[in-house]
Amino acid sequence: MRGAILYGPRDVRFEERETPKIIKPTDAIIRISATCVCGSDLWPYRGIQPIAQPTPMGHEYCGIVEEVGSAVNSIKPGQFVIGSFFASDNTCPNCQVGYQSSCQHAEFVSTAQAPLLRVPLADGTLVATPDVPSGDMIPSLLALSDVMGTGWFAADAANVKPGKTVAVVGDGAVGLLGVLSAKQMGAERIIAMSRHESRQQLAREFGATDIAAERGVEGAERIKELTNGIGADSVLECVGTQQSMMQAIQSSRRGGYVGYVGVPHGVELNGEHLFYAHVHLHGGPAPVRRYLPELIDLVWNKKINPGKVFDLTLPLDQVAEGYRAMDERRAIKALLRP
Amino acid sequence: MRGAILYGPRDVRFEERETPKIIKPTDAIIRISATCVCGSDLWPYRGIQPIAQPTPMGHEYCGIVEEVGSAVNSIKPGQFVIGSFFASDNTCPNCQVGYQSSCQHAEFVSTAQAPLLRVPLADGTLVATPDVPSGDMIPSLLALSDVMGTGWFAADAANVKPGKTVAVVGDGAVGLLGVLSAKQMGAERIIAMSRHESRQQLAREFGATDIAAERGVEGAERIKELTNGIGADSVLECVGTQQSMMQAIQSSRRGGYVGYVGVPHGVELNGEHLFYAHVHLHGGPAPVRRYLPELIDLVWNKKINPGKVFDLTLPLDQVAEGYRAMDERRAIKALLRP
Repeated sequence: MRGAILYGPRDVRFEERETPKIIKPTDAIIRISATCVCGSDLWPYRGIQPIAQPTPMGHEYCGIVEEVGSAVNSIKPGQFVIGSFFASDNTCPNCQVGYQSSCQHAEFVSTAQAPLLRVPLADGTLVATPDVPSGDMIPSLLALSDVMGTGWFAADAANVKPGKTVAVVGDGAVGLLGVLSAKQMGAERIIAMSRHESRQQLAREFGATDIAAERGVEGAERIKELTNGIGADSVLECVGTQQSMMQAIQSSRRGGYVGYVGVPHGVELNGEHLFYAHVHLHGGPAPVRRYLPELIDLVWNKKINPGKVFDLTLPLDQVAEGYRAMDERRAIKALLRP
Repeated sequence: MRGAILYGPRDVRFEERETPKIIKPTDAIIRISATCVCGSDLWPYRGIQPIAQPTPMGHEYCGIVEEVGSAVNSIKPGQFVIGSFFASDNTCPNCQVGYQSSCQHAEFVSTAQAPLLRVPLADGTLVATPDVPSGDMIPSLLALSDVMGTGWFAADAANVKPGKTVAVVGDGAVGLLGVLSAKQMGAERIIAMSRHESRQQLAREFGATDIAAERGVEGAERIKELTNGIGADSVLECVGTQQSMMQAIQSSRRGGYVGYVGVPHGVELNGEHLFYAHVHLHGGPAPVRRYLPELIDLVWNKKINPGKVFDLTLPLDQVAEGYRAMDERRAIKALLRP
């Protein structure tokens, strides 16, 4: 089998890898219907998060169950399934309170840019759709594996409620789906922070009512201007840099909520600044598994169409071009079909 | 009139100061029934937060209204009133969402260790009791001005709910009243983190079910041990150091809530650590004004007795001894009577 392997900065190759097989009785093997490149894949791709050795890539997936281990009970061969990038048993205390991405037995699923994938803890991790979906639904279902679940968690962590004003920092796929999530949760006003026309357009399509092109301190000031000097009730931080985190905190009203899902790189928060900002802060790796049943239902019933973030579709063997297009911001998100 | 003035590290004097008078039409002058020394007064007292010049001290107060400015409508001479350390108009957008300590016109009340006090924005800041209280109720009413309101905010910010497990970091007066607040809010299990016997005893009296004497990483590990390896649902951070903040975050379960009210001194939070800790974080200067009506009601009806934290009562002219006793941890909190 051939799959994506990262060798170093901007060097992804599609090469022969070992075909995955059942290792533990709780494993499943799935045949990938679609996978994709994540914004977080760009951190190692750009060398910002160095890798020690050639590394298989990919953590977003959906597909047909090919085989299950002897201890797998709820998932069956032939089902179409979606799972999170963190495998979880869905029974430990952390899972029971809805933080499956902090499962006491969590394993990162990191080899999904390939035709076949081993998923650990299959019963806890995978959720089957009501039936095998039609092809046009697959991009939206794939999005649930990470990017949509992460945008949804950002909105949930930021306490988005009907009638509220929301600001979204970051116009990557997660930020754009944060806009969609906020809309779905009933926000009245959604300010997307973006300076790229194509992304602004998709943000509007997903429900943004305003666009703010400014960044950093100016960005936060713009949000204040747009909200009678008060700030947004909810702010979604979908980038992970010091600047974006500060922009998010400063864009919030006093007592407002910042949901942060951008994996922090070099972020340090000054305690005193945070104290006087008076914001609520919550975030982390999205517990996608918690949301999968609800989000599958919304996609299945055509209430949401998160698959629109895929503005580039490639055959899997052109995975390197998918990374390049996203790195150069020519594409929002690249879908790969084995 | 004589009042407390801080000259430098460990040098508080009781000296002649200008008698306060109405400056703005929204002011009130109150005759102090009781005031006290705050844990946060010890930061400048110890020289950790240097002062530029001799500084009048005191921000906790209750007493009888002596005089009001021409624009004051709801507060009248002769009433017994309590106010927060932050004067607030109680009408601006930040006040309206319950963050009066971030009032757009907030003024810090900083001269309360004296027989008379000018309170700005009297209508917004002061809350009158149903009647002039008996003397034995005054310590508990005084506590509402800051320390009890701050412990209550810590518990509220940490989302304490009936049946939950709570850990309290810090055994100063705020921490102890955090215990009382958690009990009042219905927590099932309350773990007070303290290594001082007299404070442990008061914590138990206020509702603590367990005591953990360990600190830092060991403290957090002890909380995990006491909670089946999971961590507390709610953690109250009532100190303000790097160690106490880390201890609080590490003591929380995944998805748990940390309410922090210790004024941070030198605290830096690593974004990546916070991300994977998966906690909710909220805190800041307590919006005491929001809670005053409810807390006055609880004291008035003898449901809570926060005045128990005052284990030393002195005449106001011995204010220097009050600071010394708290600095040397001989007293939890010193009440001063003019």
